[in-house]
Amino acid sequence: MKHVLTEGNIIVGQSGGPTVAINASLAGVYQTALMRGAKTVYGMRYGIQGLLDEKIIDLSCCIRNDTDVELLKRTPSSFLGSCRYKLPDPSSNEEIYQKIFSILKKYDIRCFFYIGGNDSMDTIMKLDAYARFIGSEIRFIGVPKTIDNDLAVTDHTPGYGSVAKYIATITKEIIADSLVYDMKSITILEIMGRNAGWLTGSTALAKSADSEGVDFIYLPEIPFHMDRVRDSVIDLQKSKKSVVITVSEGVKDDNGVMYSDQIGNTTAVDAFGHKLLSGVGQYLANYLGREIGCKVRSIELSTVQRCGSHMCSRVDITEAFQVGGAAVKAAFGGQSGCMVILKRMSQEPYICVTDVSDVRKIANVEKKVPLEWINADGNGVTDDFINYVRPLIQGELSPFIVNGIPSYLTLDDTIGK
Amino acid sequence: MKHVLTEGNIIVGQSGGPTVAINASLAGVYQTALMRGAKTVYGMRYGIQGLLDEKIIDLSCCIRNDTDVELLKRTPSSFLGSCRYKLPDPSSNEEIYQKIFSILKKYDIRCFFYIGGNDSMDTIMKLDAYARFIGSEIRFIGVPKTIDNDLAVTDHTPGYGSVAKYIATITKEIIADSLVYDMKSITILEIMGRNAGWLTGSTALAKSADSEGVDFIYLPEIPFHMDRVRDSVIDLQKSKKSVVITVSEGVKDDNGVMYSDQIGNTTAVDAFGHKLLSGVGQYLANYLGREIGCKVRSIELSTVQRCGSHMCSRVDITEAFQVGGAAVKAAFGGQSGCMVILKRMSQEPYICVTDVSDVRKIANVEKKVPLEWINADGNGVTDDFINYVRPLIQGELSPFIVNGIPSYLTLDDTIGK
Repeated sequence: MKHVLTEGNIIVGQSGGPTVAINASLAGVYQTALMRGAKTVYGMRYGIQGLLDEKIIDLSCCIRNDTDVELLKRTPSSFLGSCRYKLPDPSSNEEIYQKIFSILKKYDIRCFFYIGGNDSMDTIMKLDAYARFIGSEIRFIGVPKTIDNDLAVTDHTPGYGSVAKYIATITKEIIADSLVYDMKSITILEIMGRNAGWLTGSTALAKSADSEGVDFIYLPEIPFHMDRVRDSVIDLQKSKKSVVITVSEGVKDDNGVMYSDQIGNTTAVDAFGHKLLSGVGQYLANYLGREIGCKVRSIELSTVQRCGSHMCSRVDITEAFQVGGAAVKAAFGGQSGCMVILKRMSQEPYICVTDVSDVRKIANVEKKVPLEWINADGNGVTDDFINYVRPLIQGELSPFIVNGIPSYLTLDDTIGK
Repeated sequence: MKHVLTEGNIIVGQSGGPTVAINASLAGVYQTALMRGAKTVYGMRYGIQGLLDEKIIDLSCCIRNDTDVELLKRTPSSFLGSCRYKLPDPSSNEEIYQKIFSILKKYDIRCFFYIGGNDSMDTIMKLDAYARFIGSEIRFIGVPKTIDNDLAVTDHTPGYGSVAKYIATITKEIIADSLVYDMKSITILEIMGRNAGWLTGSTALAKSADSEGVDFIYLPEIPFHMDRVRDSVIDLQKSKKSVVITVSEGVKDDNGVMYSDQIGNTTAVDAFGHKLLSGVGQYLANYLGREIGCKVRSIELSTVQRCGSHMCSRVDITEAFQVGGAAVKAAFGGQSGCMVILKRMSQEPYICVTDVSDVRKIANVEKKVPLEWINADGNGVTDDFINYVRPLIQGELSPFIVNGIPSYLTLDDTIGK
């Protein structure tokens, strides 16, 4: 077997917002590294921030057998804990780098894996650059993860497919719910995704032989106008009682300012003098209720959408595991300063393989939905979008149910403290 | 076979808010009635309101075989559509009763089934009383349904177990998500249930060997005080970083006034002069954020919780089907003016049977959580509560997945129009 580690240990961390696939990548790194010669696989608690505090654990204490690996694949959130911490430039603060490398030396770390999004890839880029600068042979590899699917170069990002599947499922359920009364109504779903419309666009998957699907879909890639939404709804209501709208939390006005920021800066107070905040979904609901005068409800899917591991995509979890394994192979083969990417080789049948890319092409870059995948009216996605995401939501991974609810692998929090 | 219909037809309707089990009861009525001699099983679109408009369909046109029955069991929302319509007293408006009975005669209806909650049982009670008054032999039977579990006499209500399972699952996922960063945080979940705490109490089920569970649970059965919540949180934060709170949408102050009503009456406006509304969860989040000063987020589970059919309870769906069948047997055996109830015969092993009760004991009554099932501090439920609900969330009913998302049975909306 090529690409093995002949001596020393490795360390792996998780960074940024959690997903339901991030632990499958951790499982992939763990199992592959042990299989390929690593003596000890260490985990850093709470990402690079925990590393600096030497919150380091031997993962074999918590992942003891293949059942644990399978449980870990089904465990939402970041098993090791996470952080949102951006490393300073070495020129402004070299001490922090010296500290990191001394800790890595202390634990005889030969390869460093960081599972995260574009901010986390900035960490990989800087650590790799510093390693080259000081002549260290430690290899730094990024493992992609984000629900937002906004990482560049890779076809898609592990974590995205599961959320897309969960959102499409919930959206279809809510559409069924919205048809229940014989009256006009408007239902608005506010979806995550920051500046990219990948998640909101996935609500288009709810449309099927047994569901009329979402009527209007608004992505942050193009300016959002409340009055145009109103006009579209009024027009559709001539032929349809229940109108369902999905809107990205990150939609912006003509000046590129997010609505949520404008609402966040509200001076609103309630009867008790307390400040109130509201997302763009509720804001749109208030507007349409006033302008159209029918029943309007807004639903913010919120955190629920990023932790719905009970309805994850088998394709996504499998790929997340694979990118973890591919990261180990790349590092053991001598690579550094790169991130594992997914390359779609074929659409029908869907075939996807792993590769690696220079992390500098990925760090701090946001990949948005191509404008040609948004329809001419700016209120829906094209078949190209649907064909892109459909393969990513295929297959289920049955939860391990104990006492009626899904079971997870957990970390004894006394370890590493 | 006793309890058969020797001639004529039956009709069934759905009323009130949808659940994920209401269509299993419809399937139970449909299959049992056909098996026991009914010539035609009619469905009323949009409950009694649709009946008055003669929106009546022959259900065999949409439920064509056993696969359709299984699909119907897995379909959320009300297959036939629903209404919130309260019949007037016959003394004030007899015409409406005359109209209903003339339509029932036209379709040769011998038995009338209404799947709903305590408001819907008022409809059964009034129609039965009017039938006796005019000497009609049509039998009127109620089939229990509500996510709120607030129906009297019955041990529990079909629809509740599935939501309890879904809420417990999501709550556990959110707890895992809340542990991700190495910092103090408060997470608040606002749960449905109107004046009863059955749903909010079910979040206690998230506690398990692999989850620390919810820290504080607030039900509408006892007065809610923001300052006591604050004090409890501050105290717990001395030993625990992430605090998770679940609060019922219907919690009230000492005067019995719902917080959500007080917030609803807000004069709050945002920067655009638009009125903002907010639920008690967000309200509590704003308060705790101000008083304690750590990261606080509020999640309103909203409609998502009542339509989560992809994670339903097999016990619940099975019982929902059974109460539909038991309603048919009761009606065909000559009973009227009653509702099917569930009686728990044994706790370990869990054994539950159907029976019938006089609908007058149920109509317009709300069953709340017994005060002795709430802990002394008023911020959690006792083991008795957990033992009561645990059997109701057992077992899964795999969704029929098509193209990556669950499939439903749908009604061709041109039928009956």
